[in-house]
Amino acid sequence: MELVAIGTVRSPLTDRASAPKQGHEGAPDAWLAFDADVRAGLEGIAAGDDLLVLTWLDRADRGVLRVVPRDDPRNPERGVFSTRSADRPNPIGVHRVRVLEVAGDRLLVSDLEAIDGTPIVDVKPVLRRADPDVR
Amino acid sequence: MELVAIGTVRSPLTDRASAPKQGHEGAPDAWLAFDADVRAGLEGIAAGDDLLVLTWLDRADRGVLRVVPRDDPRNPERGVFSTRSADRPNPIGVHRVRVLEVAGDRLLVSDLEAIDGTPIVDVKPVLRRADPDVR
Repeated sequence: MELVAIGTVRSPLTDRASAPKQGHEGAPDAWLAFDADVRAGLEGIAAGDDLLVLTWLDRADRGVLRVVPRDDPRNPERGVFSTRSADRPNPIGVHRVRVLEVAGDRLLVSDLEAIDGTPIVDVKPVLRRADPDVR
Repeated sequence: MELVAIGTVRSPLTDRASAPKQGHEGAPDAWLAFDADVRAGLEGIAAGDDLLVLTWLDRADRGVLRVVPRDDPRNPERGVFSTRSADRPNPIGVHRVRVLEVAGDRLLVSDLEAIDGTPIVDVKPVLRRADPDVR
């Protein structure tokens, strides 16, 4: 199960410590710069679309199974799969973003908390339903 | 970027042709059977929780960049990243499910369209927001 990068996040966020934990917590706009050989896969994506961007959080600690949520010592430690910690056995980030601009093989998106240089591994449309949101 | 399986889907669905395309389209309940060495990561997950389950769709065609949505010839071909096709460069399934039962290192969940034997690579909580849903 080997992932291939299909592109790279280009963001003003350059280190993990200063990045928000979730995109809606003040994350900046960022560019998704796709590799030329997957450009055909972008057709049909337009400004205004809501997407799930999947990234490989390459600075994560993959040995972590228990975490203190939000690094707040008042929170009890719990299993990592009941949290959105980046540190986990397979550090795949799932980011909900909105497309602001399409420019060839680059997409400008809002609210992305991934840091500059993070590999992109997949992009999928959000499927809307009547029930509450996933972020 | 090498994924490790953390468990396996145990489902009455045994082939891709008969599986629904989305979990809310009549997918059955299924067990998530986790490997013993990640069990500590499950603590904090309870019946009633909404989870995102990430799987590796190991029967997918990774060479696909353009698809006909929902295999309906009336639909125009489009880029795979604007669809939820399983066939894509990195075939990671994102499944929204609800936990029905917790039994040690197994979780019974509703509405999972992944077929029996599919490797599980991550589990995350759904983060609710005011806006529409992601499935």
